[in-house]
Amino acid sequence: MPYELYYWDGIQGRGEFVRLALEEAGADYVDICRGPASKGQGTRAMLAIMGSKSEPGIPFAPPFLKDGDLIISHVANILMYLGPTLGLAPRDEAQRHELNSLQLTITDLVAEVHDTHHPIATSKYYEEQKEEAKARSAEFIDNRIPKYLGYFERVLQQNPHGPAHVFGNGLTYVDLSLFQVYEGLRYAFPRATAHLADRYPHLAALHAAVMKRPNIARYLQSDRRIPFNEDGIFRHYPELDRSEA
Amino acid sequence: MPYELYYWDGIQGRGEFVRLALEEAGADYVDICRGPASKGQGTRAMLAIMGSKSEPGIPFAPPFLKDGDLIISHVANILMYLGPTLGLAPRDEAQRHELNSLQLTITDLVAEVHDTHHPIATSKYYEEQKEEAKARSAEFIDNRIPKYLGYFERVLQQNPHGPAHVFGNGLTYVDLSLFQVYEGLRYAFPRATAHLADRYPHLAALHAAVMKRPNIARYLQSDRRIPFNEDGIFRHYPELDRSEA
Repeated sequence: MPYELYYWDGIQGRGEFVRLALEEAGADYVDICRGPASKGQGTRAMLAIMGSKSEPGIPFAPPFLKDGDLIISHVANILMYLGPTLGLAPRDEAQRHELNSLQLTITDLVAEVHDTHHPIATSKYYEEQKEEAKARSAEFIDNRIPKYLGYFERVLQQNPHGPAHVFGNGLTYVDLSLFQVYEGLRYAFPRATAHLADRYPHLAALHAAVMKRPNIARYLQSDRRIPFNEDGIFRHYPELDRSEA
Repeated sequence: MPYELYYWDGIQGRGEFVRLALEEAGADYVDICRGPASKGQGTRAMLAIMGSKSEPGIPFAPPFLKDGDLIISHVANILMYLGPTLGLAPRDEAQRHELNSLQLTITDLVAEVHDTHHPIATSKYYEEQKEEAKARSAEFIDNRIPKYLGYFERVLQQNPHGPAHVFGNGLTYVDLSLFQVYEGLRYAFPRATAHLADRYPHLAALHAAVMKRPNIARYLQSDRRIPFNEDGIFRHYPELDRSEA
């Protein structure tokens, strides 16, 4: 039975971190909201689960994964669950928690990226909080990007197996998520990230290496990869980017 | 060997969710930053690990847990790791992930609580972003508290084993974390939360039940329980609370 991924149609968003892992592993999965209502798919199928009055495992928000009857929500949790089966995480229990530490730092980063364009209210439009978004984005660019990327550069640097991967000597789902973060930050803040590769060479190399992996390369060229857009997490609003020097 | 908990001294903060689980279980642990430098403890011991140039498992931020040589960071990850050993989570792998889904929703809630007083820049004082904090707090009180607490009330309601616990038929670490959330929201926003028990009766009952557990009651009376204060996550700034009706 294929995995069922439930996430909003039309955006990469948080679902993309899960898609990348499933695609890299060549896993059998259905992106439910993008499927036809005639097959019981589409966004309505997702909302039915979220609105269930009897299901004990109701998710707070997408993305969530259905594996048979099991429902698991939150990106880091889904990836930790899938990791060993997909060959993208060690099977050792303690190591899985070490890997999860790294993924949860990405979770925090992604929440901060969201708040660069929605610093006051998720329920309101960007345009209604644009001035605050400019202030928050300036802080994000000046302090938070260096803090997060500097941290992951250091984790790569200090990996006893070498800086090609963030953990151990093989690819894990955290490497894939770092590819997406790097890609997303460059999309959202092209001026502020123009010299990213100079400052974070190991991250840049990891990003390039992931992009060339056959399954990932195929996926990025497919129509399953939704382009970045201004409904997702990583949004390109030029006024939030660093101004030209 | 006792567990070593690393978290900033002087605040409950995110570390408190871990402390509550360790205290409930009567686990042997050392709250490192609160210990004496003469024993190699204190904040400096924490910063030494975070600043290590060789350690592969460097945490991005506190709290983190040391269990022998293993270092695990992020509250939800620490609790998922400790859960079965402390008797506060099922041992079944799938169920542990279901429980983790709930805890990660609390993680998101806690990040939003932090941002009520720091909506623009963690690096700046509250006083420098007070106006934005008022706007974000109004949104938090009007929309986010009902969304989160409504969700957990529903999870309690839909628990097939009854609404006394959030998962299964016994106490888990998520119940303890919900106690802390309930306690913290009432501290931070006493006016906005004045009628919480009417709206969320199962949550209120869970809060009362946790508070009466012998180990928790003893802990709350001890000097190991740091009082809420305006350096932590839950801060009481009257101007951010709902105004009197």
